Amino acid sequence: MILINGESKEHIEIADRGFQYGDGLFETIEVRDGQAVFLERHLERLNSGCQRLYIPFPGAELLSFEAGELCRRSAGGRHSVRAVLKVIVTRGSGGRGYRQPDVIQPTRVLSLHPYPDYPEIYREQGIVARLCATRLGLNPTLAGIKHLNRLEQVMARAEWNDPAIQEGLMLDVNDHVIEGTMTNLFYIKNNSLYTSALAQSGVAGIMRGIIMKLSAEHGLPVIEHAFTKDALLSADEIFLCNSIIGIWPIKQIETTRFSVGPLTQSIQVWLDKFTSDDCMEAG
Amino acid sequence: MILINGESKEHIEIADRGFQYGDGLFETIEVRDGQAVFLERHLERLNSGCQRLYIPFPGAELLSFEAGELCRRSAGGRHSVRAVLKVIVTRGSGGRGYRQPDVIQPTRVLSLHPYPDYPEIYREQGIVARLCATRLGLNPTLAGIKHLNRLEQVMARAEWNDPAIQEGLMLDVNDHVIEGTMTNLFYIKNNSLYTSALAQSGVAGIMRGIIMKLSAEHGLPVIEHAFTKDALLSADEIFLCNSIIGIWPIKQIETTRFSVGPLTQSIQVWLDKFTSDDCMEAG
Repeated sequence: MILINGESKEHIEIADRGFQYGDGLFETIEVRDGQAVFLERHLERLNSGCQRLYIPFPGAELLSFEAGELCRRSAGGRHSVRAVLKVIVTRGSGGRGYRQPDVIQPTRVLSLHPYPDYPEIYREQGIVARLCATRLGLNPTLAGIKHLNRLEQVMARAEWNDPAIQEGLMLDVNDHVIEGTMTNLFYIKNNSLYTSALAQSGVAGIMRGIIMKLSAEHGLPVIEHAFTKDALLSADEIFLCNSIIGIWPIKQIETTRFSVGPLTQSIQVWLDKFTSDDCMEAG
Repeated sequence: MILINGESKEHIEIADRGFQYGDGLFETIEVRDGQAVFLERHLERLNSGCQRLYIPFPGAELLSFEAGELCRRSAGGRHSVRAVLKVIVTRGSGGRGYRQPDVIQPTRVLSLHPYPDYPEIYREQGIVARLCATRLGLNPTLAGIKHLNRLEQVMARAEWNDPAIQEGLMLDVNDHVIEGTMTNLFYIKNNSLYTSALAQSGVAGIMRGIIMKLSAEHGLPVIEHAFTKDALLSADEIFLCNSIIGIWPIKQIETTRFSVGPLTQSIQVWLDKFTSDDCMEAG
């Protein structure tokens, strides 16, 4: 089921700037027991993305209401539904070419999707990652936000079909490792947590932000910096995160093997508790 | 009127990857006397863009047929119609997240739009351009092709509203001048023609290609290279081009003034003749 500007529909105008130019933003949100997890944080990020792109934010109250409606209607009264909620906001239709219309009427699209059937073993024993040949461009204007211009990720994800490889890591054109195609990347070295600064490329994920906050609160130093493939491969522990998978340790990158380390496991525990607490509060 | 996969429609599936990720390509083509100008070249470029993105090309014959249908039906039998034909090809629907589907069924969208009412004076006496603050990112994977990830251009075009300024010039993050928001850029210095190489950003326009070919044929040296704003501002002549406007000389960038020079005028004459010949052949 899909809600477009509050109405149940499955199609969008060809003239919508989301289709014409990728002129918009999105959020991908876990739905657990019929509730959108960390919804407030996702809508805050959507709001700040809208500000960066000068798109009027449709409002957290309206989007929360519609997310609730969608979950309720799709669940058919059940409260056990686990799913993925995608929220897209575009600059709507109009304008002349790239020029935006004088009055922007944003389009909002909320859709519910099956929760992907990732094996539990990924989270417990780690996954295998590869290094993508497709590089992330450098683009300070768009870096950090979750916009709809995602051809780089599509091209990177098209590089492999091997089901034994769960994620591809992307470097930028300056040879810095940035993130996975659909995940943010962390590594641990000498009891500190490192991740890319995302000033020139990448998406600053909600899970990434929560992990940084929880780690700092638990006394684990968190450092955002630029790092190379060699630095990554010499790490003590490595893991990936996003709003759907939570945390996946990496057990192998190309031919280099890693253990699922104690700090990664601690962060998983902190995150599980924080997520449960959020669900309790929201519920 | 819009043709989606050959049918008259105005809406596209939400699941289309063009909307979800900007996962596709487009062409903007002048329609003169009911005929798509340089259609063969545009479809060749679309084909090569499809190859770059691993999207199956729908075929020049099919797209030409549908373009003809659209022009005929929209003209209501008139042969005098001048318009803009936009052709979009996306990777279609399906796949899981960024991962493309195993069998790609591309979506093709052909739409006809009013020809923009640019005053003839732009072409004769030149236009005023500004320098945009929004930079083009560096991205060799996508450089040169006319894909649907166009947020950089949208952001650059949103920088000004002054109707006295007709185009904004964009630099990349390395301070090289690349192109206009909707045009390619050339300058003339000491009887040679210069333009950006577009290896790391920008769109290699059809008009740009034709101008380079015609200039070389007429003995004017053509050099693709990286150049700075200072090099541009010290040029003898500057002009912009695209498939809709043809050639617009630049008479002013910020506070620096330029004359409409003799070589720009010669290239306009060569281009006019070449375009007329192409229309005659196609008709």
